[in-house]
Amino acid sequence: MKARVHVRLKTGVHDPQGKAIRNALVGLGFSDLGEVRQGKLIELELGEDDPEAARDTVDAMCRRLLANTVIETYDIELEQ
Amino acid sequence: MKARVHVRLKTGVHDPQGKAIRNALVGLGFSDLGEVRQGKLIELELGEDDPEAARDTVDAMCRRLLANTVIETYDIELEQ
Repeated sequence: MKARVHVRLKTGVHDPQGKAIRNALVGLGFSDLGEVRQGKLIELELGEDDPEAARDTVDAMCRRLLANTVIETYDIELEQ
Repeated sequence: MKARVHVRLKTGVHDPQGKAIRNALVGLGFSDLGEVRQGKLIELELGEDDPEAARDTVDAMCRRLLANTVIETYDIELEQ
């Protein structure tokens, strides 16, 4: 089973990477642009086949390593 | 309209970040784990309301700035 994790900075946390991307895009002429935020995409192949167990495992991975839950949120998508 | 862009290293391109994450997860006891790949998540707010035009704009952003198409692929999701 595969899992896809999105890790994002929480709303209100300053995102200098997103701001730099936004400035660069505006400089290239893409001016009709609101906020830009950059996060992380982490894709994992799991041996686990049960969706509920897989989600629990990935949730534990996020809390223990993949996300800094003080400043980041995460969501998990599973695909067979 | 909001756009979400995933930027991933192409298959076969060495991914040291993904490998480091995998090693750390195994070290934490998550041993039933195949490959781990890390990519980027970029979320943009667009002034454009037409989905087709928005997709074209974001595609141009990817080709010109967000992705290095020599070693990376990208996909675009739009939401109203």
